[in-house]
Amino acid sequence: MRAVRFHGPKDIRLDHIEEPACGKGQVKLRNGYCGICGSDLHEYTSGPVLIPKEPHNITKTTSPVVMGHEFGGIVEEVGEGVTHISPGQKAVVRPTIFDRKCPPCKLGYEYCCENIGFLGLSGYGGGFSEYVVAPAEHFYPIPDNVSMEAASLIEPLAVAWHAVNLSPFKEGDHVLIVGGGPVGLCILQVLKMGGAKSTMVAELMESRKKSANDFGATHVLDPTEVDVPDKVRDLTDGIGADVVFDAAGVERALDGAIRACRVHGTIVNVAVWEKRPSMRVNEMMYHEVRYLGAALYDEKSFQGVIEAISKGQLKPERMITDKIGLEDVIEKGFKTLLEDRDRHCKILVNPQA
Amino acid sequence: MRAVRFHGPKDIRLDHIEEPACGKGQVKLRNGYCGICGSDLHEYTSGPVLIPKEPHNITKTTSPVVMGHEFGGIVEEVGEGVTHISPGQKAVVRPTIFDRKCPPCKLGYEYCCENIGFLGLSGYGGGFSEYVVAPAEHFYPIPDNVSMEAASLIEPLAVAWHAVNLSPFKEGDHVLIVGGGPVGLCILQVLKMGGAKSTMVAELMESRKKSANDFGATHVLDPTEVDVPDKVRDLTDGIGADVVFDAAGVERALDGAIRACRVHGTIVNVAVWEKRPSMRVNEMMYHEVRYLGAALYDEKSFQGVIEAISKGQLKPERMITDKIGLEDVIEKGFKTLLEDRDRHCKILVNPQA
Repeated sequence: MRAVRFHGPKDIRLDHIEEPACGKGQVKLRNGYCGICGSDLHEYTSGPVLIPKEPHNITKTTSPVVMGHEFGGIVEEVGEGVTHISPGQKAVVRPTIFDRKCPPCKLGYEYCCENIGFLGLSGYGGGFSEYVVAPAEHFYPIPDNVSMEAASLIEPLAVAWHAVNLSPFKEGDHVLIVGGGPVGLCILQVLKMGGAKSTMVAELMESRKKSANDFGATHVLDPTEVDVPDKVRDLTDGIGADVVFDAAGVERALDGAIRACRVHGTIVNVAVWEKRPSMRVNEMMYHEVRYLGAALYDEKSFQGVIEAISKGQLKPERMITDKIGLEDVIEKGFKTLLEDRDRHCKILVNPQA
Repeated sequence: MRAVRFHGPKDIRLDHIEEPACGKGQVKLRNGYCGICGSDLHEYTSGPVLIPKEPHNITKTTSPVVMGHEFGGIVEEVGEGVTHISPGQKAVVRPTIFDRKCPPCKLGYEYCCENIGFLGLSGYGGGFSEYVVAPAEHFYPIPDNVSMEAASLIEPLAVAWHAVNLSPFKEGDHVLIVGGGPVGLCILQVLKMGGAKSTMVAELMESRKKSANDFGATHVLDPTEVDVPDKVRDLTDGIGADVVFDAAGVERALDGAIRACRVHGTIVNVAVWEKRPSMRVNEMMYHEVRYLGAALYDEKSFQGVIEAISKGQLKPERMITDKIGLEDVIEKGFKTLLEDRDRHCKILVNPQA
């Protein structure tokens, strides 16, 4: 079968590999759309980052690995002992792989596993190929009314869902989202669904400003045009945002986020930082502002997103700006997202095209 | 009366000033012992920091100001309308001054007031003088069995009490305290009282290591001898500390604190930083570690400390390493604490000596 695999930085190839067989306790999926994630781009430009340089502790795999971790598909076959899902059913993949032995796993935070891996990065195959076979626990059935396009957006939405649930956000809150890229837009959708009173998005790229407006941000603040913290205070009776989500990972924007956050407010980091930021810890202390990182998602977040899409409470398909085939993953996928960011949000790969 | 006043950096003088009169709604206190705080030293070396350069928004005072904000005394006189306290009663001073108008005050976080001031720094007089007169709300009666020495330690203990209460600390937790100075020791005492399972103190100065042992730390970890995070994991079945209190404000120690904290653990900052630290935000995210600053104290913390001392649950007097008179504040107080830190913890000033 055809599969896009990571061989090294700037060396990602469309290979022909053997179609995997479905063993005991496993599921074989005929892959549907798979989103290209920021972490895929990171592997392309400067990997291996998450891709294991030595055989992964759990999957025992090293590169070349099949990429792609935001995807669903149709169940093709189930192995012996698999009862929660059947051939022909639509399914979404939860790509996170845990050892279930380390301290975080034992404390119930499997998604913080010390040996965490991902389908599409650490082995078991991935979404940028015609089929995938992996342990059955990675596959959740999804209702028929969830499109295969929407299925590919469940994973990034689960990141947002988890971040919002980890935060003290509640209905009626004023929220600032720093960064209007795919993660920021996912958070915006979850907050709108949760009844945020105001959703302010700080973003400077034109297309992202437009997307934030399209998804119903109450205010889009361009930091090249306004002082974001001042504007946030203006919009909240001088109080500041109850919760801030940082989906940018830029020191200057974090400085502003700290100033924009109200006393006893919370800043949730969902960005992976390229460089450690120097932080205004004294200001955070004087206002007793909390800072917390949200990593990935738990099973509940996945189920929550599936249900919300099925009920029509989340309609994420508008995030999709292009659909391409496996042969175009580099030129029309990775390179376009790196060089022409302002024109794109989510590009989906169709491995069956 | 005699009063130690700030005139400028390295220019703190014992002056003779007029004894203040007690007006309506005010209390006049015959000052007892007053502790020298780290912030006093900071004013001495590089002030004015908290001391207002222009008339303070609330007190309308600027330097020279009477210093000293960790103190109690005996009520000498009460003004018209003051009913909660009477002449002859022992009292402790809550030095924080609020405007009660700004957003933090309106949200109920008066101690995060945007115009916050302090007796002993921003006007209304202070503890390094024979008497003080201030609005009645600053004076809390204390039981007779609380010594005047202990009364001077209520304010720093209230900082610790508040920080512990703001954190998710609960009985049976494993806690790491970074820094065994006065604030760290106060936190240690509050945690012991609250039933911490282990209290690990990271500290390198000999006298402070000894003090931490004296106050019952279960483990004293010298970062020049052990890798603190590794040791914390060893001592907690590989899990890490449930809560970390940073009373040091040193970047390298904060790096260690992040590594020493368990998944979903909390780091509470009680240090004032000289320089913004660059923080390991990615590691914090992957372990969903929370970071929060604790500023000062509320009224409840003050009352809690008073009661705990009166009941014998807190016995802080051992922190006192010297008692001096007003004329010795610079030579035997500030300079000793700056130059001979390893020999001292709390030095009290007796304005009546």
